[in-house]
Amino acid sequence: MNIENNNAKHIYWSKNIRNIEPYVPGEQPKDRKFIKLNTNENPYPPSPRVLEALKNFRHEDLRLYPDPNGEELREAVAEYYKVSKAQVFVGNGSDEVLAFSFMAFFNPMDKPVVFPDITYSFYEVYCKFLRINFNTVDLEEDFSIQVERFPHDNGGIVISNPNAPTSLHLDKDRIIALLERNRDSVVIIDEAYIDFGGESSIDLINKYPNLLVVQTLSKSRSLAGLRIGLAVGDKNLIEGLNAVKDSLNSYTLDSLALTGAMEAIRDQEYFEDTRSKIIKTRDMTADTLINLGFKVLPSKANFIFASHPVIPAGVLFQRLREEGILVRYFNKTRIDNFLRISIGTDEEMKELAGKIEKIMAGS
Amino acid sequence: MNIENNNAKHIYWSKNIRNIEPYVPGEQPKDRKFIKLNTNENPYPPSPRVLEALKNFRHEDLRLYPDPNGEELREAVAEYYKVSKAQVFVGNGSDEVLAFSFMAFFNPMDKPVVFPDITYSFYEVYCKFLRINFNTVDLEEDFSIQVERFPHDNGGIVISNPNAPTSLHLDKDRIIALLERNRDSVVIIDEAYIDFGGESSIDLINKYPNLLVVQTLSKSRSLAGLRIGLAVGDKNLIEGLNAVKDSLNSYTLDSLALTGAMEAIRDQEYFEDTRSKIIKTRDMTADTLINLGFKVLPSKANFIFASHPVIPAGVLFQRLREEGILVRYFNKTRIDNFLRISIGTDEEMKELAGKIEKIMAGS
Repeated sequence: MNIENNNAKHIYWSKNIRNIEPYVPGEQPKDRKFIKLNTNENPYPPSPRVLEALKNFRHEDLRLYPDPNGEELREAVAEYYKVSKAQVFVGNGSDEVLAFSFMAFFNPMDKPVVFPDITYSFYEVYCKFLRINFNTVDLEEDFSIQVERFPHDNGGIVISNPNAPTSLHLDKDRIIALLERNRDSVVIIDEAYIDFGGESSIDLINKYPNLLVVQTLSKSRSLAGLRIGLAVGDKNLIEGLNAVKDSLNSYTLDSLALTGAMEAIRDQEYFEDTRSKIIKTRDMTADTLINLGFKVLPSKANFIFASHPVIPAGVLFQRLREEGILVRYFNKTRIDNFLRISIGTDEEMKELAGKIEKIMAGS
Repeated sequence: MNIENNNAKHIYWSKNIRNIEPYVPGEQPKDRKFIKLNTNENPYPPSPRVLEALKNFRHEDLRLYPDPNGEELREAVAEYYKVSKAQVFVGNGSDEVLAFSFMAFFNPMDKPVVFPDITYSFYEVYCKFLRINFNTVDLEEDFSIQVERFPHDNGGIVISNPNAPTSLHLDKDRIIALLERNRDSVVIIDEAYIDFGGESSIDLINKYPNLLVVQTLSKSRSLAGLRIGLAVGDKNLIEGLNAVKDSLNSYTLDSLALTGAMEAIRDQEYFEDTRSKIIKTRDMTADTLINLGFKVLPSKANFIFASHPVIPAGVLFQRLREEGILVRYFNKTRIDNFLRISIGTDEEMKELAGKIEKIMAGS
């Protein structure tokens, strides 16, 4: 949204928002039935315990404000991760938690915050909106992250692990190496996709008071529609996040979101069951695509990042859309010949493979 | 939260949050059953249509992201207020909508934004957090707002109508007078309590492109627990709000909130019925308190602001708490001898009157 040439129309806008470029989420079509493999949603419904709790909720009580501090949910998260409640923050999706983190720990117009050149594009959006300087560190040729490349002098570091949209996982010893050499600024590890085979850094928070781990219930807990994100870190970091929240909106999670989230965290069995299924489907899908000639990066996420040597990704994206399958395409240097494909059910992925074969046969 | 003397603990905090003083919402006790007249909640449950829609919601669909733009809800609001969908913004409670508005329309470290000295205390919190200069305009002796007192040279104007915590309504000709003399900056009218006898300024938005009217479903629609706020204004203002939202969090309203909100807006009959009941109870309560010797400001809100000539408000607040009734007390110049009392059911207000008589008899 570049409106520099259109200022007359926006005379009432603050200077701050005149040149921002907001994040554009994957499309949520309403007109037509697609196989949706474009926003990394979970193909399975939320845990039956979540459905039950929401069904049994006394909706009459919605007249009352929710608990502004989400005490019970934070308790459940703390228990699950074996940390204290004072080390847990909950918010309206991990995007809000990340935005609050940028406000709480990064200084505007100061040392640059650093993140990989290819990563979740919202980091750059936050920085521009909040006037935080930033630098990017180039991923290696194979899209891996070399932590030694992050400069010592920085205003903060943000790493998505597994990285999006590459799907690649950064091993824990690499995170530790980064934390050992970076003590003076906050390191955010965005673990939106950690539950699909990665290893969480949460158990490092007691050793590194500048480590904040951010997660979401949108992917592995099947609750994208309820908007719940969380952060785990030293209690001073959590206090900072609360100071931001209470300066903007005291109650960011509604009563139904708090209720559903709690049950999702508690149902370990269903969680294990569905994430295993997704991992299995993912690995099978990767094999299928490799057999069809694709290059597929080794994924630890609920999506794969794939490129075909002959059919350009932009073309394939469009052709799949015509065939009723939505995937995500980023028209951006280095990754403009890749598709990010969310992992659906086995049936959906078979359908995808079939359509790709059809498109390839026709091309 | 003044932590100036405690910076060592907060070495990882951004400079921005080191001296902020977050908003403190009214308490939500969990340990004990109180009559809650302290957070202006509606004593009646949400509309039966809301309860029905939430009960019938396919919770399995929570695996999918909500509509990031709340199209259907905005459509319902547009229809209700006879404006276009492009003139409506929806967000996570009116606090979030207000915070986004301050970000979208007010410039940091520039001309001061102006609001009354006694009003919703979150305005000052937003300004401090966002580094927006602000000035206050003194209310008159009778707590009324004199719009001619607002200076021409300002960075924006914010008026709560009816004002909180005074409960006083500003007549529409006064709002028009303000808008006529203030064309260069955005005027926000915060109508959180407008439905209890006030007159909305929404129909002025087509004439004044710098007018933004903010409302909430927490009070008159009994949905404090679902977190829904809205703004109505010129489409360029709404575009500005969307630019802010999409720079922080694409999906601020979850699928259940969107669903419940829509039905609440559509059920005109239930809305009329419950707000009439609250207005009736309010006027009766005011009479009762006046008979008990209180000074009660003429309220157009779902609360009253009352002061007793003998018993100090701080004492009465504490004694009522001991008797199981929560009201709100602000220990702040000019209003530190007033109590803000939310309007409950007739029964609850009779209970309140009884307890006050008891306390007065004992003092």
